Amino acid sequence: MRYVVGIDLGGTNIVVGTVAEDGSEAVGVVSEPTLPEQGADAVVGRIVKLARASMTEARGKDIVGVGIGSPGPLNTKTGVVLLTPNLGWTNMPLRDRVTASLDLPATLDNDANCAIFGEWWRGAARGANHVVGLTIGTGIGGGIVLGGSIYHGASDIAGEIGHMTIDSTGRRCKCGNYGCLEAYASGPSIADRAREALTGDDCLMVKMAGGDPSRITAAIVYEAAKKGDDVALDVVRETSRFLGAGVANLLNIFNPDVVVIAGGVTQAGETLFAPLRREVRKRAFKPAVDACEIVPGVLVAAGVVGAVAAYKQQD
Amino acid sequence: MRYVVGIDLGGTNIVVGTVAEDGSEAVGVVSEPTLPEQGADAVVGRIVKLARASMTEARGKDIVGVGIGSPGPLNTKTGVVLLTPNLGWTNMPLRDRVTASLDLPATLDNDANCAIFGEWWRGAARGANHVVGLTIGTGIGGGIVLGGSIYHGASDIAGEIGHMTIDSTGRRCKCGNYGCLEAYASGPSIADRAREALTGDDCLMVKMAGGDPSRITAAIVYEAAKKGDDVALDVVRETSRFLGAGVANLLNIFNPDVVVIAGGVTQAGETLFAPLRREVRKRAFKPAVDACEIVPGVLVAAGVVGAVAAYKQQD
Repeated sequence: MRYVVGIDLGGTNIVVGTVAEDGSEAVGVVSEPTLPEQGADAVVGRIVKLARASMTEARGKDIVGVGIGSPGPLNTKTGVVLLTPNLGWTNMPLRDRVTASLDLPATLDNDANCAIFGEWWRGAARGANHVVGLTIGTGIGGGIVLGGSIYHGASDIAGEIGHMTIDSTGRRCKCGNYGCLEAYASGPSIADRAREALTGDDCLMVKMAGGDPSRITAAIVYEAAKKGDDVALDVVRETSRFLGAGVANLLNIFNPDVVVIAGGVTQAGETLFAPLRREVRKRAFKPAVDACEIVPGVLVAAGVVGAVAAYKQQD
Repeated sequence: MRYVVGIDLGGTNIVVGTVAEDGSEAVGVVSEPTLPEQGADAVVGRIVKLARASMTEARGKDIVGVGIGSPGPLNTKTGVVLLTPNLGWTNMPLRDRVTASLDLPATLDNDANCAIFGEWWRGAARGANHVVGLTIGTGIGGGIVLGGSIYHGASDIAGEIGHMTIDSTGRRCKCGNYGCLEAYASGPSIADRAREALTGDDCLMVKMAGGDPSRITAAIVYEAAKKGDDVALDVVRETSRFLGAGVANLLNIFNPDVVVIAGGVTQAGETLFAPLRREVRKRAFKPAVDACEIVPGVLVAAGVVGAVAAYKQQD
């Protein structure tokens, strides 16, 4: 059995693991904070160090390559990260720098593509023919897996589902557009909407944030909703409506077998998924609703596993 | 050279032609009003009559099959039209009825899929790898052509781009959803928005409609805008903004080489396309904008040509 090192580079953490070519096993899964403020060289150094640590834990395995998942936009053919606001990089030849340091062939793909591709390969959307997925965190990433391959589009930008407008005159998004799904349903956007909805400093969410509204997070919103807080419940319901409008669009456009929703926010479980599924049922075409399961991601290190699957696709 | 009969069944007209297998020639192009109020049998009879007339004009050609494009939802595998509000049909085995009458193998696909597939095969998106298209008329249909094949999704519903929500709390759409692109930018929706914007009965658009606001059409709106009418100009600008939001979504999701916009509304030409392209440039990711041309459809009988291309795909 051959093995491939999978690297999931995020704005907050780097996760690396060594994965069997058939996805049956991940060994040497290691992680460290990204610390992008230390500069690109330090981050690349940290990636290489973690990869070496993972390969050491996997010693004896036949390691043949490295798959890298990174925030984009990026170019899969040249292996260059074009621009990452979160990391502060421009035109970084990440793939070739990793190859030079580790002396292994490497591939580069978008982090959200990798996460959803991982869920298709070994997770919640295993083997499905038409898969669309969202990764909800600091932003909302997306991945499209059709016929067992990542769909990249003409220039590797495809799948920016978080930047689908659901309210064309709505909230300004960091991307410059108005009313993007991300501007309503990413973690920070959920927290923003909760702050805007506060009726006073005695709100449960403020108390849970230690009295400081600026410290309200999406996790606090969902926790307060579970405790029955009315303001939080409203924010949660609205979040499901926004997400439902976005997912209904995906059903009408892609008619997928599976929509995977991954990322921290999905820990809210049925508090999120039950009203989301209801909203989708109200909005999307019935034959598309009937054909589709809407499920949470299940892999712990979907980005690592998917980076290896992406390596195999490019191999 | 083999030939295939292409049938484009619409709510208003049926168009039929006999097309060379390589798309180089269409002969015997004939058309009649659909008259759906006369019932399904009469419409099927009319389809068969037109097909025979086309085949007679194409006499001497080696005609091997029939490709049918129909409003949906429908099932391409069984050849059954599941439901067409415009025709009033439910579970109509259209493909097999045509085969039985003409004694030729037939295929069935969605009308908008066929129109965009036709533009990919022989028209405005010729040979492009990632094509997404809209057909703007009474409704807004959509078609997705990836790697030279129509993308159908899990149950032949894919490509309902007109029912992408761009304003999740916006105008009610005929499909039951809120804020669909169709509810803003189809021909009748453009006319509705113009009526709502009227400032008095002395408006140019009312005069052009013979004094009866209910007779304002999208064509009148665009005509009045060309003459400099302020109210019409506002409606036209807004239409481009709505369409721009929808097309920007398609760029961020599909990263296509070409977006084709077909249908009567495109006769407005640059009055429509210039502000539409501007809006897309403002909203979509730059690498997606740079990779994509937004063009009007160019085929006179795209639905007929595309129905033949769809026959070849299923063959």
